[in-house]
Amino acid sequence: MMKEILEKVQQGILSVADAQEQLATYENLGFAKIDYHRKKRQGFSEVVFGEGKTAEQIISIINTLQLKDKAVLVTRISKEKAEQVLGTCPSFIYDETAKILFWKDSNQELRFEGYIAVVCAGTSDLPVAEEAALTAEILGCRVRRIYDVGVAGIHRLLDNIEDIQNATVTIVVAGMEGALPSVVGGLVSHPVFAVPTSIGYGASFNGVSALLTMLNSCSSGISVVNIDNGFGAAYNAALIHRLIQKGAEQNENTLS
Amino acid sequence: MMKEILEKVQQGILSVADAQEQLATYENLGFAKIDYHRKKRQGFSEVVFGEGKTAEQIISIINTLQLKDKAVLVTRISKEKAEQVLGTCPSFIYDETAKILFWKDSNQELRFEGYIAVVCAGTSDLPVAEEAALTAEILGCRVRRIYDVGVAGIHRLLDNIEDIQNATVTIVVAGMEGALPSVVGGLVSHPVFAVPTSIGYGASFNGVSALLTMLNSCSSGISVVNIDNGFGAAYNAALIHRLIQKGAEQNENTLS
Amino acid sequence: MMKEILEKVQQGILSVADAQEQLATYENLGFAKIDYHRKKRQGFSEVVFGEGKTAEQIISIINTLQLKDKAVLVTRISKEKAEQVLGTCPSFIYDETAKILFWKDSNQELRFEGYIAVVCAGTSDLPVAEEAALTAEILGCRVRRIYDVGVAGIHRLLDNIEDIQNATVTIVVAGMEGALPSVVGGLVSHPVFAVPTSIGYGASFNGVSALLTMLNSCSSGISVVNIDNGFGAAYNAALIHRLIQKGAEQNENTLS
Amino acid sequence: MMKEILEKVQQGILSVADAQEQLATYENLGFAKIDYHRKKRQGFSEVVFGEGKTAEQIISIINTLQLKDKAVLVTRISKEKAEQVLGTCPSFIYDETAKILFWKDSNQELRFEGYIAVVCAGTSDLPVAEEAALTAEILGCRVRRIYDVGVAGIHRLLDNIEDIQNATVTIVVAGMEGALPSVVGGLVSHPVFAVPTSIGYGASFNGVSALLTMLNSCSSGISVVNIDNGFGAAYNAALIHRLIQKGAEQNENTLS
Amino acid sequence: MMKEILEKVQQGILSVADAQEQLATYENLGFAKIDYHRKKRQGFSEVVFGEGKTAEQIISIINTLQLKDKAVLVTRISKEKAEQVLGTCPSFIYDETAKILFWKDSNQELRFEGYIAVVCAGTSDLPVAEEAALTAEILGCRVRRIYDVGVAGIHRLLDNIEDIQNATVTIVVAGMEGALPSVVGGLVSHPVFAVPTSIGYGASFNGVSALLTMLNSCSSGISVVNIDNGFGAAYNAALIHRLIQKGAEQNENTLS
Amino acid sequence: MMKEILEKVQQGILSVADAQEQLATYENLGFAKIDYHRKKRQGFSEVVFGEGKTAEQIISIINTLQLKDKAVLVTRISKEKAEQVLGTCPSFIYDETAKILFWKDSNQELRFEGYIAVVCAGTSDLPVAEEAALTAEILGCRVRRIYDVGVAGIHRLLDNIEDIQNATVTIVVAGMEGALPSVVGGLVSHPVFAVPTSIGYGASFNGVSALLTMLNSCSSGISVVNIDNGFGAAYNAALIHRLIQKGAEQNENTLS
Amino acid sequence: MMKEILEKVQQGILSVADAQEQLATYENLGFAKIDYHRKKRQGFSEVVFGEGKTAEQIISIINTLQLKDKAVLVTRISKEKAEQVLGTCPSFIYDETAKILFWKDSNQELRFEGYIAVVCAGTSDLPVAEEAALTAEILGCRVRRIYDVGVAGIHRLLDNIEDIQNATVTIVVAGMEGALPSVVGGLVSHPVFAVPTSIGYGASFNGVSALLTMLNSCSSGISVVNIDNGFGAAYNAALIHRLIQKGAEQNENTLS
Amino acid sequence: MMKEILEKVQQGILSVADAQEQLATYENLGFAKIDYHRKKRQGFSEVVFGEGKTAEQIISIINTLQLKDKAVLVTRISKEKAEQVLGTCPSFIYDETAKILFWKDSNQELRFEGYIAVVCAGTSDLPVAEEAALTAEILGCRVRRIYDVGVAGIHRLLDNIEDIQNATVTIVVAGMEGALPSVVGGLVSHPVFAVPTSIGYGASFNGVSALLTMLNSCSSGISVVNIDNGFGAAYNAALIHRLIQKGAEQNENTLS
Repeated sequence: MMKEILEKVQQGILSVADAQEQLATYENLGFAKIDYHRKKRQGFSEVVFGEGKTAEQIISIINTLQLKDKAVLVTRISKEKAEQVLGTCPSFIYDETAKILFWKDSNQELRFEGYIAVVCAGTSDLPVAEEAALTAEILGCRVRRIYDVGVAGIHRLLDNIEDIQNATVTIVVAGMEGALPSVVGGLVSHPVFAVPTSIGYGASFNGVSALLTMLNSCSSGISVVNIDNGFGAAYNAALIHRLIQKGAEQNENTLS
Repeated sequence: MMKEILEKVQQGILSVADAQEQLATYENLGFAKIDYHRKKRQGFSEVVFGEGKTAEQIISIINTLQLKDKAVLVTRISKEKAEQVLGTCPSFIYDETAKILFWKDSNQELRFEGYIAVVCAGTSDLPVAEEAALTAEILGCRVRRIYDVGVAGIHRLLDNIEDIQNATVTIVVAGMEGALPSVVGGLVSHPVFAVPTSIGYGASFNGVSALLTMLNSCSSGISVVNIDNGFGAAYNAALIHRLIQKGAEQNENTLS
Repeated sequence: MMKEILEKVQQGILSVADAQEQLATYENLGFAKIDYHRKKRQGFSEVVFGEGKTAEQIISIINTLQLKDKAVLVTRISKEKAEQVLGTCPSFIYDETAKILFWKDSNQELRFEGYIAVVCAGTSDLPVAEEAALTAEILGCRVRRIYDVGVAGIHRLLDNIEDIQNATVTIVVAGMEGALPSVVGGLVSHPVFAVPTSIGYGASFNGVSALLTMLNSCSSGISVVNIDNGFGAAYNAALIHRLIQKGAEQNENTLS
Repeated sequence: MMKEILEKVQQGILSVADAQEQLATYENLGFAKIDYHRKKRQGFSEVVFGEGKTAEQIISIINTLQLKDKAVLVTRISKEKAEQVLGTCPSFIYDETAKILFWKDSNQELRFEGYIAVVCAGTSDLPVAEEAALTAEILGCRVRRIYDVGVAGIHRLLDNIEDIQNATVTIVVAGMEGALPSVVGGLVSHPVFAVPTSIGYGASFNGVSALLTMLNSCSSGISVVNIDNGFGAAYNAALIHRLIQKGAEQNENTLS
Repeated sequence: MMKEILEKVQQGILSVADAQEQLATYENLGFAKIDYHRKKRQGFSEVVFGEGKTAEQIISIINTLQLKDKAVLVTRISKEKAEQVLGTCPSFIYDETAKILFWKDSNQELRFEGYIAVVCAGTSDLPVAEEAALTAEILGCRVRRIYDVGVAGIHRLLDNIEDIQNATVTIVVAGMEGALPSVVGGLVSHPVFAVPTSIGYGASFNGVSALLTMLNSCSSGISVVNIDNGFGAAYNAALIHRLIQKGAEQNENTLS
Repeated sequence: MMKEILEKVQQGILSVADAQEQLATYENLGFAKIDYHRKKRQGFSEVVFGEGKTAEQIISIINTLQLKDKAVLVTRISKEKAEQVLGTCPSFIYDETAKILFWKDSNQELRFEGYIAVVCAGTSDLPVAEEAALTAEILGCRVRRIYDVGVAGIHRLLDNIEDIQNATVTIVVAGMEGALPSVVGGLVSHPVFAVPTSIGYGASFNGVSALLTMLNSCSSGISVVNIDNGFGAAYNAALIHRLIQKGAEQNENTLS
Repeated sequence: MMKEILEKVQQGILSVADAQEQLATYENLGFAKIDYHRKKRQGFSEVVFGEGKTAEQIISIINTLQLKDKAVLVTRISKEKAEQVLGTCPSFIYDETAKILFWKDSNQELRFEGYIAVVCAGTSDLPVAEEAALTAEILGCRVRRIYDVGVAGIHRLLDNIEDIQNATVTIVVAGMEGALPSVVGGLVSHPVFAVPTSIGYGASFNGVSALLTMLNSCSSGISVVNIDNGFGAAYNAALIHRLIQKGAEQNENTLS
Repeated sequence: MMKEILEKVQQGILSVADAQEQLATYENLGFAKIDYHRKKRQGFSEVVFGEGKTAEQIISIINTLQLKDKAVLVTRISKEKAEQVLGTCPSFIYDETAKILFWKDSNQELRFEGYIAVVCAGTSDLPVAEEAALTAEILGCRVRRIYDVGVAGIHRLLDNIEDIQNATVTIVVAGMEGALPSVVGGLVSHPVFAVPTSIGYGASFNGVSALLTMLNSCSSGISVVNIDNGFGAAYNAALIHRLIQKGAEQNENTLS
């Protein structure tokens, strides 16, 4: 591209001033390329971390983002703030359990058959599990929820193991001792994202106990995100789904 | 008892000096009673914590203890020290894995059919598991060892679950993420003693991760001992075995 | 059992469909067996952890559980929620100190003479001690409460030591420095369950100081549960009581 | 499948004993299925954690594993032990930096064009980075190494950013403040596995500082494994590569 | 000075009592010298830490301080308290974001051309960044604010890098993983003061994660202040500005 | 004093130069006073912390110190270094258990009848207990050693309680759970200095568990020194002894 | 004493029943002796820890205690609760800063001239300092308050150093970095009790930073109590005052 | 510059290929600019962190660096490695206390009169203090060493306070409780860099106690570097010195 600009200058087709401007753009291309990549993943919604922002700030950010893309996802937003935003942005949907506010193209078609399994240990882990599940869905993935299958009653997990084994990626959400990802990790042959939750009391130290358990898992194929970070796990899982789809499409292109 | 002594003094049967001595004993009876209790549990060996003691100190303690009772158990004693002690106390046996040195009446008969299951997660947890298993045996209990059944391959545990379910008490030894006791605790209906081990690396923090996991277990019926404290778990388990036997015997006595 | 089913199929007594159903059950027997075990311990109430559940959720769970068994125990439930539940479930009793809501067969007869000693250090530890004591009673055990016998006035403990020594199991509840279990552990010859409480200030770190003290106890025969987990200690103690009773009964059967 | 067995029994084609055996297998199918999955991923080598095992134990495990599959990978094995093992298993290769001993089919053909980028911050992080890179290669993936591009000289990273952006998955290895994954995560649109290393001094606390940095990353698409766990990151990355390939193949099958 | 006093006494010019008083002052000169230094830096406002003081106490301190110098700076003061103080001290200004209340000579002239760059990672770090920026301004320094340039989008930082490189000192404020100072530190050749903020969740531990990141920075030229201590960083930066100015002035004097 | 100097100057008795010198001294009197105080406590030996100093450095410091006072105490000095020092300073004595090297006036007479009780929990705590006991003796106090009276066998403590109760000050040394000071503190009515030791394993965290126990003691009258700091406790105890003696002497003077 | 009782029984002077009662008393003498000691220190008020007790409970405890002794001290009691108690116990005084409620004999005469210096670093440490100062006064000691002399302005401390040096015991209260006790400890030759306070922010961790500073002090003669435990320091200091007085009195008795 | 290149292309003076190459360089100017800055600070030696590098690696790095600049500084290099390097690089000097190996232009002239005060608390802190002092000297600064002036004897510090007050920047090195920077910070009016050292025992936690003390300092004008990071403090101090010089020079230029 730089060569073409220079040749045009040489040939007198392009003025020095215009070439300068174009090269300035080019000069930033390393980062423009990044944006290009961002563009390419625009099946993915724009994401706003709602915690610590006022409803006004969120509305303003949404308005800016929607100039580029309708799909916007706001995480960790309380019911009160969400209701204020919904007053201004009525096309958005709010999920109270997941504390997620989002706009999603309802006509979006899911071409990829694979699904993400979102597994959680107890009913108290539900908000984090739903943050993960809903995020994955908004990012364009199929999701299968397998809830309340903690290790204290391992048969509940085993009764659902095939659904988990057939997923492409599994997200395991657990608080207290956080042992579930280790057990799941030993039963599947795909990547597992472990999400410790701050559920527990006493020596659970607001999720530190579960976090350490997951980091020290003796099962291979497990990686960990921050405490209560359901969004992070879903984002990772969605990236993998996109890779599989892209791989399949490239293959398709090669064959055709 | 005090009354009888006083009456004998009143009656002139007992001299003041003798009464004084008897009452002095009586006075200490609260604590003598403790020793009496100790006596009654003399099926239990005397226990010496070998770490930080020299071979000479251990030999000297053994000699003192064996005046009262032949059965002596030395825990956490290195091979070198053990060999020195064995030079002087040739009737002792040393187990290198468990790092236990002991004298045990080989004629001791195990009347109680119940057994303690000692379960461990990985081969690296073996020394602690053996400290527990051997201690329990020396304290007069039957033991069944179920090793290398960590949660990363839950089917290995499930293949052995009946043996564990039929035990009276289970000791579960696990390092790294320490998730095994939670799984076992959900599958059995008897007390489980969880022993975290210092096995692991990075964020395992020498057993702290496993310890926290076990304290936060969502399975009921689990209690925890210090990191690597296989002895402690076995001692607890043996106390329960004795209670069951005593219960059975009292019952027997009542019936006969 | 599998053999019999197959033979019936072979003999034409059982249709393939019926055999399939029966074997399906059989197939799950490993876990059905678990439920069978659960059944057998149904002298034990069903337990619901009330914290983080709404009154509505608790009522709904109670209703489901009582289809199987009348005896239900809800722990860590606040006065407000309990009152809401009592509106719908008037046959339940609420204990405000222990924060326990329960239904218990008032005709239940305690055949076993043994009792659990629940010992606590200070009056601030009372809620946790009562959670333990009441849980044990609801699970069908006799309980003797020995409260306010902290180590700062060791004579208070010694004045009550016989009551503690005569128990089958002792639960020791202590906050601040948590030294009481070590002292009790040295005076008794039965298992001691230590419960650290979050009582204290400054460097007590919400129970961590007491927890560490108990894990490091130099007395044998002590195991530890999570901070403030009075329920957990009582559950363990009740499991042991059941073992003793079962031992006695088996013995009885053998003799008769 | 169960139905067919029963029908054969009904029809007298299958004896009760044989049916019993087949059903027993079937009964374990849930877990056999797991093994089946394992089989399917046998492009993946069997993995042995070498730390804390003697050379003899490792040789014995290798011999057992190679009955099933030639490809075996031993991680965290010191030079001394590796040399002992090589004496018995001369077809193995030892990599001293990565501390990995392995057997690999040299004829193995890499059909998938995608590659894993292994990025590290400083030369001290090299052993962990190599553990990751070599593991990924042994598990059948292409790898591109981009080393010594720590954030203190961000231009070194930017000079190599295209190579990283074109990878399918990136593994970022960093000690001290562990900031590199956050920067990389903001520049790529594929999953990033962050590996904290124990490199550093003072308040780095043997990798805890880097671990926390990575868990708290404000870049989406980052997940974390245990301190120094290069193997774990590579295993996760390889699982994703397999998913992409499988996706491509399924697509291929659909089309053909 | 002591000599002169003594000579005056010798000469009878000074009474013993007066000499005694003067020498008492002299005696404390070591510390008076400190005050003299304080005087010399009186371009610097007097500073009051507002947290934990009542509005009344703050008003009283302001009144006392303003006897010596009009310029007073109150940090960490809530809106409510500030409004109460403003009722009594109407010449003060309150900045709600920075939570700073101050009086400043509006005629103060900034002779030094150099400026302090205040850089922050995310919008949530703004209050701490503003505490730093405003403090520096009140202490008489030029400030350039470069906000919302976190490492997750490194191009935002690079777009502003020249402004940062041309500063004399840079203050970098960051929460969560706190990686920004390391990146900035590698791009500039002047001192960087890193301020961790308590922004984050889960394993950010209220700023501990960011603090550790900054202490372990592999970039040279970075030093760290307490979590959320924007004031501290600004105070340090202002001290350096004063040194540069003083250096320039001394030089000026030498030359003229 | 200042007045007198000035008067002498006024009267021409003292030259300005000499007055200047004397006043310079006076000027520093605040700190000279400190030295004067030090002088007054010269019944107390000079103390050198031996750890991290070479034998040569220690010899050199001893030589300097002995110019002022013969009595020198070197703490935390290994046997090897001590032997080197003894080669040059043959009048010193080395105690291997306490790791203390000292010179003491053997003719020193102990006028005060009160004694310090040094109590320790287990034989492993002996080195720290001896550091305390020997330090107190070298600082001129009577000491009564009551060793191996840990809380696991409370009767051992109670058998010795009168000796402890009759002391003026008690030093309690304990590792593992560190419960002993709480029990002792409840039984005496004089100050107790608690010394946690680094003895223990697992969750004892090198003395942190014992330290926390002691800081959180529910007994009044307990204060704590650093882990293994037997010297510190003894120094405090000796200061109190000196106060009592001084009080007694002042009283004596008043009366006579 | 036991001998006399027995002789009286032998001689028929004492009935068995009466002897039994007397011996029972004797038997408990070890602990009765404790109470005797308590009696002797009854110059000391009875102390109630008010935190976590209701106003009703406190009133009830006060009533019980005042049967024995009028002097009662309630620490850590909020204004609200104190006002409730004052309604019932109008002879009590409440100090809002120290959060102490007490009854004190206003006629109590202070015979001992020595005083305790209570030193604090900043105005925020005042509540803890006052808890210490007021406690010491209620326990019958003279107190000199030297407040707001933190190390950031060391001359403020030095201006008051003589008052501190002339005390018998010094209590130093400090939050944030907690450096003050080290400086004071180096300037005095009497025992210093250091009280860390929970004052600070960020990495002060609610007093942990100050606590560690004090435990690691390089000044001899410092011991530490729990965070914010002003009462504990004062109690220790008062014990020492009593020892000095007792020493003086014994001396007096000896001489007369 | 870009404009000129384009004009030359337009004018046919520059071929497209050459222009492309030149613009490619230009394109990287953002980072070249960084190097330019580096160049400008080349009064500063190149720095190599020696820890974890072999002697061979260090020699190789030195050779590469010296192609650009003779002045090279290797920190944290052991005596053994240094001697190996000196064999190949005989013009280097090794300082054993500071563990620094360096080449320095002995003809370098120090134009700036200002000096850095390096203050340390105890003799054990000397290696870190020397790392700071020597680094500052090698980086071209005057240094004044004020050692062994810990807070336990505050008069030692005050005797040297003028030397510290007259410095431009002060580096304070302290272990154990780390209180010295707070005291110094209150006595000077220039920036203080605090360096915690890992010196201490027990609850010093290898420098964490000192680190926390320094972060929480109530003196303004203090910033902190990592534990034992004497180099980091010196580097910061040298950056400030350069700023002052540059300020003076710019001023000079302006005036002339």
